[in-house]
Amino acid sequence: MSEGFEFQVSSRDGKTSARLGSLRTPHGRIDTPAFMPVGTQGTVKGLLPEQVRDAGFGLILGNTYHLALRPGADTIARHGGLHGFMGWDGGILTDSGGFQVYSLAKLRKITNEGVAFRSHIDGSLHEFTPESVIVIQEALGSDIAMVLDVCPPSRASRDELERAVEVTTDWAERSIAVRSRADQAVFGIVQGGLDRTLRAEHAVKIGSLPFEGMAIGGLSVGEPPHEMYPVAQSTAALLPEDKPRYLMGVGMPVDLVRCVMAGIDLFDCVFPTRAARNGLLLTSAGRLVIKHARFREDLKPPDPHCQCPTCSRYSRAYLRHLFAGGEILSSVLCTIHNLHFYAGLMARIRDAASRATLETLAREVEAAYPPKGDEGPSGDG
Amino acid sequence: MSEGFEFQVSSRDGKTSARLGSLRTPHGRIDTPAFMPVGTQGTVKGLLPEQVRDAGFGLILGNTYHLALRPGADTIARHGGLHGFMGWDGGILTDSGGFQVYSLAKLRKITNEGVAFRSHIDGSLHEFTPESVIVIQEALGSDIAMVLDVCPPSRASRDELERAVEVTTDWAERSIAVRSRADQAVFGIVQGGLDRTLRAEHAVKIGSLPFEGMAIGGLSVGEPPHEMYPVAQSTAALLPEDKPRYLMGVGMPVDLVRCVMAGIDLFDCVFPTRAARNGLLLTSAGRLVIKHARFREDLKPPDPHCQCPTCSRYSRAYLRHLFAGGEILSSVLCTIHNLHFYAGLMARIRDAASRATLETLAREVEAAYPPKGDEGPSGDG
Repeated sequence: MSEGFEFQVSSRDGKTSARLGSLRTPHGRIDTPAFMPVGTQGTVKGLLPEQVRDAGFGLILGNTYHLALRPGADTIARHGGLHGFMGWDGGILTDSGGFQVYSLAKLRKITNEGVAFRSHIDGSLHEFTPESVIVIQEALGSDIAMVLDVCPPSRASRDELERAVEVTTDWAERSIAVRSRADQAVFGIVQGGLDRTLRAEHAVKIGSLPFEGMAIGGLSVGEPPHEMYPVAQSTAALLPEDKPRYLMGVGMPVDLVRCVMAGIDLFDCVFPTRAARNGLLLTSAGRLVIKHARFREDLKPPDPHCQCPTCSRYSRAYLRHLFAGGEILSSVLCTIHNLHFYAGLMARIRDAASRATLETLAREVEAAYPPKGDEGPSGDG
Repeated sequence: MSEGFEFQVSSRDGKTSARLGSLRTPHGRIDTPAFMPVGTQGTVKGLLPEQVRDAGFGLILGNTYHLALRPGADTIARHGGLHGFMGWDGGILTDSGGFQVYSLAKLRKITNEGVAFRSHIDGSLHEFTPESVIVIQEALGSDIAMVLDVCPPSRASRDELERAVEVTTDWAERSIAVRSRADQAVFGIVQGGLDRTLRAEHAVKIGSLPFEGMAIGGLSVGEPPHEMYPVAQSTAALLPEDKPRYLMGVGMPVDLVRCVMAGIDLFDCVFPTRAARNGLLLTSAGRLVIKHARFREDLKPPDPHCQCPTCSRYSRAYLRHLFAGGEILSSVLCTIHNLHFYAGLMARIRDAASRATLETLAREVEAAYPPKGDEGPSGDG
């Protein structure tokens, strides 16, 4: 167990697999289940750190792939780590870069040793190994580091999935051997696509290793939600009870409720922040596409039931005007709102879990947010 | 005199024409000489209103041309005016749109009646008359409205300049006849290019009309600063002593000092905000172009002598990283810094005026900011 890291399950829902708990890192404590806003390049796009905090978040995600390529882990280490570099005093989880190598980089080549790839920025050649991504994340100084994994599409062939599981297990063990920071937790990652048997075997294997938390990777990469939820459920059930469970890259509104019901404690997703920059506001009544002409003269706030700084002060007409004018403030105000919406949704989920009313909440959220399928690769670019 | 509007000169420099004073509008009081950040489309680009206030500003400029085209004055009036629309509780001066029609719009045609033009957004036909721009600005509810003027290049022919002065005078009188808001000041505008005789005649004429303030237009539109300062000086000297003098669209760092010495009280310029978005930081040691490779590993704040939120927390390396990554936060943090720099410069100017040391300050600022000539048209687009 790493110093300053503690996870406690305080209660269970009873009806579902939902758990309520608390996660402490060297940079503060958060209630779980929790959502982590994505801060890909050392910034949650458009917001100052205090605006992320004010929206209700104490743990964010940083992308190792992006940060390692630019500005480089050494530069960040010279700032005392990612916290100092970006001026964020809350918790940070960094991913391992594995998923980004598969989704963003070019010419990748996976061997037992690691993965070679070309940067999506300038085409330069790089290699990630299980050891190097731990070294990089130790330099970044995140509170939680992720192991490098092999992340095939969820519908890959059985052979490909088996091979991914095998290599990911080997890499997990190599990650443990090389980790050296006492103040950083490391999470293992379960792969296996939509294959329930492979997932089960891998969950048991990864769950047996001395990680501070366990992640489920390789979901929400093309398959419909109704195929994803049961896999999350059955996989989570085989993970250690006393360790946090993180479902990587999953986080549409409905997913959050359904996957908390499946026993998940942590989420991240680019959706609320990316949607904001595209003028898509998430409200209690569903999606609001701010560019629509019908909002030209609409004096109402984006969400009349929301108390966020954006809804407290601005009209739909003003936000539409900013979006139409290509104003930076459009992204800022919409991101503030969407993150407040996500923090509020997580609070409602925790409340519903404490009352055993998650199914009711899930149906309510499904009505406002009918599933639309995949929203693209992880990393808020 | 409009309600809630008051201007007082509290002291004079003695050595130069500089004045120290105070300007009160229905939305608060500011010290003069003062700089107004430009909020073209109902937002000082990238900043929340409280960030503009925190940078040290109590009076901003809005562009009537842009706001009249999009979203339209009626929409803004339905929000209780521009203050309510954009959530800014400080003072607002709106320009008349004259300069933007000449610099941005297409196919403009000036008659005695007004000016017809095509929108730079969608090519639609519009007409501004002296009366209509007052009606528009009354709908916007700005604290200070500007009259419509004819604004030829400063080096236009004598005939063209004479004609511009003649029409601008006629329009000034028509503006006074139509104004109806008791809580809005209206400023007249002196034209005449670089022709000292025309400027003098027009200053006397406009100065004799019952405006709450007087502006000097048509400068800093191509001529070098050393030709502009004497015209500002001689024109200001002929304007009423007891009314504020606003030098429109002028505001490079050196200009601010030199033109305060010429007797100017108010300035606006897109330079600090536009420069910020281009990664140009204004520091006590001069311009700092953040994209330069030499800042890659530079842990120092942009300006080690600055106390602004950006310099208090972020390194040059972080800002360079944000700029290189195309991050929104780059514009936000650089704009916060540049506006703090401008507020600080105005405070130093007022301090130097009170000690009669403006010439020393001017040379210091000239050394850090060698004049580079024109920075493009007004309107922070």
